[in-house]
Amino acid sequence: MKLLVQKFGGTSVANAERIHRAARRAIKAKNDGYSVVVVVSAMGGATDDLLDLAGQINSNPPRRELDMLLTTGEQVSIALMAMAISAAGHEAISLTGGQIGLITDAVHTKARIQKIDAERIRKEHAAGKIVIVAGFQGIDETGEITTLGRGASDTTAVALAAVLGAERCEIYTDVDGVYTTDPRIVHAARKIDRISYDEMLEFASLGAGVMHSRAIEFGKKYNVDIHVRSSLTDTEGTLITKEVKQMENIVVSGVTLKTDMAQFLLQDLPDDPGVAAGVFASVAEAKVAVDDIIQTVGDSAKASISFTVEKNDLAECRLVCDKIAKQYNIKSVECVSPVSKVSIVGVGMKSHTGVALTMFKALANAKVNINAITTSEIKISCLVNPEQGEQALKAIHSAFELDD
Amino acid sequence: MKLLVQKFGGTSVANAERIHRAARRAIKAKNDGYSVVVVVSAMGGATDDLLDLAGQINSNPPRRELDMLLTTGEQVSIALMAMAISAAGHEAISLTGGQIGLITDAVHTKARIQKIDAERIRKEHAAGKIVIVAGFQGIDETGEITTLGRGASDTTAVALAAVLGAERCEIYTDVDGVYTTDPRIVHAARKIDRISYDEMLEFASLGAGVMHSRAIEFGKKYNVDIHVRSSLTDTEGTLITKEVKQMENIVVSGVTLKTDMAQFLLQDLPDDPGVAAGVFASVAEAKVAVDDIIQTVGDSAKASISFTVEKNDLAECRLVCDKIAKQYNIKSVECVSPVSKVSIVGVGMKSHTGVALTMFKALANAKVNINAITTSEIKISCLVNPEQGEQALKAIHSAFELDD
Repeated sequence: MKLLVQKFGGTSVANAERIHRAARRAIKAKNDGYSVVVVVSAMGGATDDLLDLAGQINSNPPRRELDMLLTTGEQVSIALMAMAISAAGHEAISLTGGQIGLITDAVHTKARIQKIDAERIRKEHAAGKIVIVAGFQGIDETGEITTLGRGASDTTAVALAAVLGAERCEIYTDVDGVYTTDPRIVHAARKIDRISYDEMLEFASLGAGVMHSRAIEFGKKYNVDIHVRSSLTDTEGTLITKEVKQMENIVVSGVTLKTDMAQFLLQDLPDDPGVAAGVFASVAEAKVAVDDIIQTVGDSAKASISFTVEKNDLAECRLVCDKIAKQYNIKSVECVSPVSKVSIVGVGMKSHTGVALTMFKALANAKVNINAITTSEIKISCLVNPEQGEQALKAIHSAFELDD
Repeated sequence: MKLLVQKFGGTSVANAERIHRAARRAIKAKNDGYSVVVVVSAMGGATDDLLDLAGQINSNPPRRELDMLLTTGEQVSIALMAMAISAAGHEAISLTGGQIGLITDAVHTKARIQKIDAERIRKEHAAGKIVIVAGFQGIDETGEITTLGRGASDTTAVALAAVLGAERCEIYTDVDGVYTTDPRIVHAARKIDRISYDEMLEFASLGAGVMHSRAIEFGKKYNVDIHVRSSLTDTEGTLITKEVKQMENIVVSGVTLKTDMAQFLLQDLPDDPGVAAGVFASVAEAKVAVDDIIQTVGDSAKASISFTVEKNDLAECRLVCDKIAKQYNIKSVECVSPVSKVSIVGVGMKSHTGVALTMFKALANAKVNINAITTSEIKISCLVNPEQGEQALKAIHSAFELDD
């Protein structure tokens, strides 16, 4: 029997009316002949409310207890969803992460899935029920309640789709799908019909993610078709799927703008093995997440390393850099903040030439200066002055003929 | 090692400040050398909020899903309580009903405890932790989440005290203890220091219950000392304990007033075997809970049955009585509503004479007419006109020298 996983995010189950709407979607799929698994997040705002409560009591709560607390959010949602389906005259059963045997490691608040026992879900499907599963949560081998990290209901949904051999995984959210760029900035942004896992992963890491990276990685690994769509309309959304030949005809799938970053520049470092490792060990030790890294070697066998971090980590990172400067006896640490990063993403650029040139020309025509450039196989990023970020985004979006 | 169970009700964990206060009590007990189990209810109002949500979605939600929903309330409380104890620098661990192996039957929303596996709690105690347990909830043999009925966190606490061989079970609530009567009506009401399980059970059934009857029954069955006290002060409360000789010196422990009742009178019923059974089968079928029953037989071998119900059930019960009247071909069904019931309770009345007389005299002096009388071994109840209820209460309280 064909099987469908539908995941509803927090905004899609934020109140009774929306829960009923989501229930109708699940019932429709059932009536269309699918065995249905519905994965739900906590009701919009519920998790933040719980975190706020925890914060009033303990500014640094034990992670185990955070998991105990936060998993109630999804448990509320699954019960209500089952009630909504039942109110419409259909059979449903809600199941916690523990009840479906979603076993994780014991790393509270960011556990990783180790296995899922599909047996219980199969049994309930055989009994004709729509199965409602709490996203985001699991248990470890000893029965302790764990969570997979914020936003990880997507991961639960895709993992279930993989284990159960679902036809696809539908992610219902408050946007229509994945856009060529942020439609709030570029009104001419277009919805993308199909996108590859890799492109979507780049989007996610560039902050334009409708979805959680780990869910996309899961989808890629197990080849699960993921359909991101609006819970409010019946419009087709965006299909995240494996890369196929015709995708390469589209050189650039989308353009992203990441703001509020800070760029550090360490000059005159010794050009010796282990220097980069030393630098980033110090940064990692301070729990600062590094975005892009650029290293160049100058004339005098001195290296300069530049990297970007979130502006939030600026103060922390400056302290680290001062330490590094002392360690390597270099004079100055330069820091530019804030900076913005504009990027193009597309699997097509692997087989097309002149893509970078088109991007740089667009920026030049828009009189946007480029502070730094980094590239990956399917991505080109430029650091720009934050005042020119939106202008850069529009120019590039237009240059690659992505405008609607 | 001596062991203490402390139970905190919804008002005692209603906000961060109160949770911290409750945590301090648990820590104090730990510092006093006890292994401590803390049982908590859902935060005040949380259960009603969840029921309201459920009601918006399904007016008759499946009981299994209600249990799935409502158990989140206690799960939130245990996590927050563990965080509060941790914030004060002590080790704590929160455990759900399932995690302590509290196994119930499969009757959702009113499951009964079948067994409790004390092993997990003992292990955590051995590790020096304060153990926080979610009240009200358990799992059945198949792992389905169940609840023990509203207010049943008391039952969880007393049951745990029994299983673990606790020195006593402390029930923290928003009142100082059990009073000789309702202090809001009779200002001269006194707090009772010690009361027997049986008296407390009568109090509970008379609506004067600070505690859930099932918890008291558990306490009686397993001889658990239960200390009901305020979570806001350090004042000693009331000890509910087994009946001892000196309790009999106190003839009457307390006086109660139950309002908003309705009295039905079925006259001229045939005085045959099975008639009473027939009548109350019909009433039970309509899910109307009956309070007191009085049957008398008149001259003509006709019986008359009178019984009281909650005023809320009046309309439902009238329909049932009309059916019964038709069935037995009797003319009229009389109904008096509202009526109030004033009762005295005391184990001492088993060994003292003239107790009823003192009560009736007190009512007579206060010019209160008695509509009906029922008695048990340790209780005498009189139905009175609701306008005279408080007056009756005060008169009796004073007549038995209970005034402070």
